[in-house]
Amino acid sequence: MIITVKANIPEKELERIKRQFEEQGFQINDSCGANYHILGLIGDTTTLDEKSILADPYISQVTRIAVPYKQASRQFHPEDTIVDVNGIKIGGKEKIVIIGGPCSVEGQEQISRIAKEVKEAGADMLRGGAYKPRTSPYAFQGLGFAGIMNLEQAKKETGMPIVSELMDSEQLEEFVEHVDIIQIGARNMQNFSLLKAVGKTKKPVLLKRGLANTIEEWIMSAEYILAQGNPNVILCERGIRTFEKYTRNTLDLSVIPIIKEKTHLPIIIDPSHATGDWKLVEAMSLAAVVAGADGLMIEVHDHPECAWSDGAQSVKPKRFKEIIEKCRKAAKIVERELG
Amino acid sequence: MIITVKANIPEKELERIKRQFEEQGFQINDSCGANYHILGLIGDTTTLDEKSILADPYISQVTRIAVPYKQASRQFHPEDTIVDVNGIKIGGKEKIVIIGGPCSVEGQEQISRIAKEVKEAGADMLRGGAYKPRTSPYAFQGLGFAGIMNLEQAKKETGMPIVSELMDSEQLEEFVEHVDIIQIGARNMQNFSLLKAVGKTKKPVLLKRGLANTIEEWIMSAEYILAQGNPNVILCERGIRTFEKYTRNTLDLSVIPIIKEKTHLPIIIDPSHATGDWKLVEAMSLAAVVAGADGLMIEVHDHPECAWSDGAQSVKPKRFKEIIEKCRKAAKIVERELG
Amino acid sequence: MIITVKANIPEKELERIKRQFEEQGFQINDSCGANYHILGLIGDTTTLDEKSILADPYISQVTRIAVPYKQASRQFHPEDTIVDVNGIKIGGKEKIVIIGGPCSVEGQEQISRIAKEVKEAGADMLRGGAYKPRTSPYAFQGLGFAGIMNLEQAKKETGMPIVSELMDSEQLEEFVEHVDIIQIGARNMQNFSLLKAVGKTKKPVLLKRGLANTIEEWIMSAEYILAQGNPNVILCERGIRTFEKYTRNTLDLSVIPIIKEKTHLPIIIDPSHATGDWKLVEAMSLAAVVAGADGLMIEVHDHPECAWSDGAQSVKPKRFKEIIEKCRKAAKIVERELG
Amino acid sequence: MIITVKANIPEKELERIKRQFEEQGFQINDSCGANYHILGLIGDTTTLDEKSILADPYISQVTRIAVPYKQASRQFHPEDTIVDVNGIKIGGKEKIVIIGGPCSVEGQEQISRIAKEVKEAGADMLRGGAYKPRTSPYAFQGLGFAGIMNLEQAKKETGMPIVSELMDSEQLEEFVEHVDIIQIGARNMQNFSLLKAVGKTKKPVLLKRGLANTIEEWIMSAEYILAQGNPNVILCERGIRTFEKYTRNTLDLSVIPIIKEKTHLPIIIDPSHATGDWKLVEAMSLAAVVAGADGLMIEVHDHPECAWSDGAQSVKPKRFKEIIEKCRKAAKIVERELG
Repeated sequence: MIITVKANIPEKELERIKRQFEEQGFQINDSCGANYHILGLIGDTTTLDEKSILADPYISQVTRIAVPYKQASRQFHPEDTIVDVNGIKIGGKEKIVIIGGPCSVEGQEQISRIAKEVKEAGADMLRGGAYKPRTSPYAFQGLGFAGIMNLEQAKKETGMPIVSELMDSEQLEEFVEHVDIIQIGARNMQNFSLLKAVGKTKKPVLLKRGLANTIEEWIMSAEYILAQGNPNVILCERGIRTFEKYTRNTLDLSVIPIIKEKTHLPIIIDPSHATGDWKLVEAMSLAAVVAGADGLMIEVHDHPECAWSDGAQSVKPKRFKEIIEKCRKAAKIVERELG
Repeated sequence: MIITVKANIPEKELERIKRQFEEQGFQINDSCGANYHILGLIGDTTTLDEKSILADPYISQVTRIAVPYKQASRQFHPEDTIVDVNGIKIGGKEKIVIIGGPCSVEGQEQISRIAKEVKEAGADMLRGGAYKPRTSPYAFQGLGFAGIMNLEQAKKETGMPIVSELMDSEQLEEFVEHVDIIQIGARNMQNFSLLKAVGKTKKPVLLKRGLANTIEEWIMSAEYILAQGNPNVILCERGIRTFEKYTRNTLDLSVIPIIKEKTHLPIIIDPSHATGDWKLVEAMSLAAVVAGADGLMIEVHDHPECAWSDGAQSVKPKRFKEIIEKCRKAAKIVERELG
Repeated sequence: MIITVKANIPEKELERIKRQFEEQGFQINDSCGANYHILGLIGDTTTLDEKSILADPYISQVTRIAVPYKQASRQFHPEDTIVDVNGIKIGGKEKIVIIGGPCSVEGQEQISRIAKEVKEAGADMLRGGAYKPRTSPYAFQGLGFAGIMNLEQAKKETGMPIVSELMDSEQLEEFVEHVDIIQIGARNMQNFSLLKAVGKTKKPVLLKRGLANTIEEWIMSAEYILAQGNPNVILCERGIRTFEKYTRNTLDLSVIPIIKEKTHLPIIIDPSHATGDWKLVEAMSLAAVVAGADGLMIEVHDHPECAWSDGAQSVKPKRFKEIIEKCRKAAKIVERELG
Repeated sequence: MIITVKANIPEKELERIKRQFEEQGFQINDSCGANYHILGLIGDTTTLDEKSILADPYISQVTRIAVPYKQASRQFHPEDTIVDVNGIKIGGKEKIVIIGGPCSVEGQEQISRIAKEVKEAGADMLRGGAYKPRTSPYAFQGLGFAGIMNLEQAKKETGMPIVSELMDSEQLEEFVEHVDIIQIGARNMQNFSLLKAVGKTKKPVLLKRGLANTIEEWIMSAEYILAQGNPNVILCERGIRTFEKYTRNTLDLSVIPIIKEKTHLPIIIDPSHATGDWKLVEAMSLAAVVAGADGLMIEVHDHPECAWSDGAQSVKPKRFKEIIEKCRKAAKIVERELG
């Protein structure tokens, strides 16, 4: 960390500042130019609070040299993390995983039917929401535990592992028992209590990027889970909030090579929530595959116009199958394969 | 709700769509122009999911006429809500409330000392974080229950009600017993489980606007609390995320007259988190007061450069007093008074 | 256009509003529900100003049904526009065009050398800035006319058409004579005088999307050029401004299928400005190709660390060649070919 | 400027980098820690291009210590700039200037009538658009030179100086002759040709902040004008683009104290364009005054519902007068006066 001190700092104040950091165990490298005076801090700066350092009236700038994350960093963990979900591997350089299913579980018949169609189309895993984060308290809030049971039954019928969103640590035990990948939704990306809770399990966690969170904040949220001892973190980009109105969110595909460079974690893309429009899902799926994504999570519904939530972004099973076939070809461009 | 149907819709499909809405209990007003064909839905549309309606291939646009919130709406509740916190009233047209205190509780001595200074400066209430949402898992996470106990002792010593942030429903009971206003932080604005939990109590809730949430989403989160039966909701603007780099966030003061028009809830402004810079706090405090805010929440620390968090945005007690004195004069412009 | 009138409007005021629109030549379809009252306007609404209509105290909402652009709209021009640049075709369903070159022309030797390398790597056209829009008045502002002459010489040597940015209509004649594609930069996307000026020529215009402009505003700027009689408009996405800090801008690839659906104009992607980081250019180029882009514009410099501008986002010629080879394979996924 | 070099840099490469900067006339201060190696550059770094420096594969970070603007900086010009417009002073610590008038000049009768009302209400200057930057080529584009003539006549009748927007340097001479303050609109904030053109005159220039421009970019655009020799720059905040939908833009009032700290230039606020809603103008005007603004520019129209542009954000003369009266009181809070 480099601390820029004001050029006109009195000697006494400079000594105070240096002593302050030395007492915290840092070595200091003092360097002085014509218009600046900088202190290089040597030691582990991850616990330092930049904003408090900046409160010192004689300090004008704080620049981090080291990244603030350790366990997620590729620097300290050069190998790709590969998350094993009932034998299906997410991450690494070979396979690309396809997750499909409806936004919400609407009942046993619906989820079993769609599960079969999704599997037939070529998906590896089944998604479905049982606890739904909805903007309106009057909107359908999900079937809850019954929905989880429906998913489990669909899993038995098709053999596909299941992914579902956890909204509250109260349901954690239920998810650990019945769900294969615990999803943390975009709105909970900085629900640090929930991150700590899933960090204490060994369950694979799919961590969605928050609507307005930087990549660094996202990695720091992954770090929360890793720091608790759970190495099975999968990142998922689902679009960020911008001023654009033609799409629900703006899909940021540049995160794929960035995440691959900065971290060792797998990353998958959710083109459905990102765009909010089923007509855009195919193009964004292909783009994600060739940009290096480790997987796709796509919303599929056989009657989108009757879906209990988010119908406009759901593709029909037939279309889903076509998308998978095209992605299968696209995967070869990056020397990978679909499951 | 107005549904725009594609001009070339076959008669059969139009009948299907109309039937679909009639079966849900809506009356339909069919109106047809040269280039458009619209259906006006008459009935309670708050539970309808726009995105699922849009999934119908023959529907091109959905326009809401009624606001999606009911209990928060001024339309159905013309009187200002005034939240009573141990006799101090937040909202209405008379008083403006000042809340001051450090970002984090750092121990009994610190919080008691600052509480006295804050009170002497003219504050009505004391703030202090015991459970801290921090971007980094390695940063100070707050003193937890010990911090709440410290706050309670400071309350005994000064008589000021206390405000503190709740991060997890696990601590709800503790907060209901010891805290006067439960704060829901910006990162948890759409943690719907937590909103439902505080909605089941009668405790005053200070609901911060999320970093990238629209005013409508914010009101909908208030609606979650109100819908559970807790009428004591106070909204708090603390800046939104934009591309600007000179400030931590962008303070959106236009929310004050908007919230006053659309809802009956009190609104207070947090200029400290909004700007991230103590030098900007005075100007933004004065601006908030004359724009109609019902209160201010300002971070105060007597040694900001040693604060365990967010020192750069904390004003010292002397400055805090000056700000209050100026705000006292500014309040007269809008015919109000400081407590 | 659908105008929502307040439910409690007096009869007299309603008559006034209806008369007002009828006098402007619109037919009106009046439709009344329990909580709403709407007027459907039949006629050409492109010239109507929504914000002035909303100034009427009895009007609460204005909803456009028809898109505000005509000449750019695919609805009225179903065929793809193919822009012919000295025999090279941009747009349509067959070829994908590659444009490469340095950010700035730095002299004859530099541009001729890079032009040859770029051509050898497989590019179809050469880019290079002679007039440079720089944030700082103290930064290198481009070689001006000398730079245009250098580009023309490089064109003679390689046969590649040249693309360069026009900043001021004062240079228009010069550009019409010496340049093959006139680029309108992101910062000038809503410089309507400049748009009108290039609209009066028949030169191909590459219109970059503004840093914070919606897709609709972008199409409206294309409409400015088309409305003046110049049909040769090529759109170019180069990233939008968001809160993210790891990339210079956020590349919005979902614009590709959207532009293809809404308009008949060709669209190319500039992954260099979008990301600001040469390491991300390959992944974003591949993604653009499979998402349906009609071309790529990539910054290439043989000594990026000595470039007079934007070195960090320039790839070296060898890397550029590798990117082109991979894109050649990726193009097959969408049944297209590189030039 | 501080350049962070990768820790593992070979000695030879380090020497090359140092030599490179020394050849450009910089002195170098080399400082080396355990995990970092930094070079402090001593000399005038305003012309250095950070992005090109970053292209060097051995350089990982570039941190500016000095601000990139010189003439606009308060550091080198501690006194407030006061712009004299026909005897009315903008800037300094005494007066606050009020500018009012319609969005567009619609004819002599309209502008003369509104000018009188605006003057009577207490305004110091008259605004009115003759050349209008409109998103749509089919919308009213302004009366052009005739509008300027109408403004000049209104000026003769009322004695008020006039402000109007210049869109093209072709009209510069006309503006220099007939207009008192030349406005550069938000969409042209980075039209560097236009900035240079007005910089060559001595006319007061009102420079609006771009919709998505940082404060630093805005100051750099002012620097363009100052660097050409025109010291009469007035900054004008008019809201920035965010995701919020209830307002047209988000008014960023924190710019006022920031501009006052970083620069010596006057700053005025345009609450009309910022919010897009006349109902919010009063609250934002008051807020701007107490936050330290040097003036307000407010849209006024006597028949907003018939305005040829932007009616929804225009207040009527009566309301305008009330706002001025309240602002007159608010000005006292900051020890200033309205004109």
